Amino acid sequence: MSSIEKRQTADLPRYAKIRQMRRGNYDRSLAYEILDAGMVAHVGFIHENRPMVIPMAYARIDDQLFIHGASSTRIVKANGGGVPACLEVTMIDGFVVARSGFHHSVNYRCAIAHGTARVVEDPDLQTRALAAITDHLLPGRWDECRQMTATELKATGVLVFDIEHISTKVRTGGPVDDKEDLGTDVWAGVVPVVTALGQPLAAPDVPEKTPVPASVPAARRKFA
Amino acid sequence: MSSIEKRQTADLPRYAKIRQMRRGNYDRSLAYEILDAGMVAHVGFIHENRPMVIPMAYARIDDQLFIHGASSTRIVKANGGGVPACLEVTMIDGFVVARSGFHHSVNYRCAIAHGTARVVEDPDLQTRALAAITDHLLPGRWDECRQMTATELKATGVLVFDIEHISTKVRTGGPVDDKEDLGTDVWAGVVPVVTALGQPLAAPDVPEKTPVPASVPAARRKFA
Repeated sequence: MSSIEKRQTADLPRYAKIRQMRRGNYDRSLAYEILDAGMVAHVGFIHENRPMVIPMAYARIDDQLFIHGASSTRIVKANGGGVPACLEVTMIDGFVVARSGFHHSVNYRCAIAHGTARVVEDPDLQTRALAAITDHLLPGRWDECRQMTATELKATGVLVFDIEHISTKVRTGGPVDDKEDLGTDVWAGVVPVVTALGQPLAAPDVPEKTPVPASVPAARRKFA
Repeated sequence: MSSIEKRQTADLPRYAKIRQMRRGNYDRSLAYEILDAGMVAHVGFIHENRPMVIPMAYARIDDQLFIHGASSTRIVKANGGGVPACLEVTMIDGFVVARSGFHHSVNYRCAIAHGTARVVEDPDLQTRALAAITDHLLPGRWDECRQMTATELKATGVLVFDIEHISTKVRTGGPVDDKEDLGTDVWAGVVPVVTALGQPLAAPDVPEKTPVPASVPAARRKFA
């Protein structure tokens, strides 16, 4: 994938729906846009001298990221004031089909944040973070639910991740083939990757006429 | 997300399309199934005492994983005989909407492999690995293209990742709410996440009647 950094993206008028965007590397607004659009973060820690990567629910509030999950909380708790961490969010937008194997690529948007993860001890911030994590996938869901109990709050490990450095990588557009390969009859182009939310399925114990809450269509719009 | 490990999945007859699967943790055939179904791997390394996570194209051949990308190759080259690495692949299958904020979750399939990454020096293995990485996204594509040149091979860093340990995490099914919350009129259920490949878009310099190659529909079937 990284070979794309070396090349310019070709100008491809046939790809009306694909933005020709090659921004980066340290554009914070683009990084935040990618972070806000992702479904899952891939969080890296060092544990017993080994790298670990865990998929985690997450949310951004201003310049901080919040993540939540038992195993990472354990690692961070065991390390006092916080641990170095890396949080990566990637969306795959298309497979780039080139004439040569060498020039195959992937269209994607990726944000990689480096920072320090600490356990959130303040219950107010912890609640705000959990609301943000819930609303990240289902906008407005937190306010549709009953409030969190003290017991639930105690049982939920939340980490705050201070962004010390953030970078983006974005590839868009079609294949960039070698001139010598252009005359061949080998097809080239892009196969778009589409991610979307389907029709919501009610749980069996939800009474028949219970309306689907606003957070569900909001999520379907967000991840359309 | 990890809170799901603590609970059983409820039996939800309304979710006809969602398999009630809670296998894991160290089922290698399930892990390989997940690895083979993913589009991108999130690869963790330690670089200058910090964790790094990079999205990378990958493929599995038997019990080995192959990844490819300049930055990781640099890290590994700088560390002689190989570096400890973690390779994680996750598919998000649905948002689990519960009555309480606490019981919200995500349906997903995840494989996490720990091992050692080394640069592949043997050109034959390197070629096999690059074919596997290409065919992982576009089954059969490698044989549709011209052969790789020696120059291209030299320019492409491939790492082999020996799997020393692999685990899976899978969550399926609906929300598992507290009994006290069941009587409320708050909707609960699952919003499926669907990932698929769209119609292929030809590059502008592909002659009009060039047929779309077999690898493209094969990819669309694989990632349907």
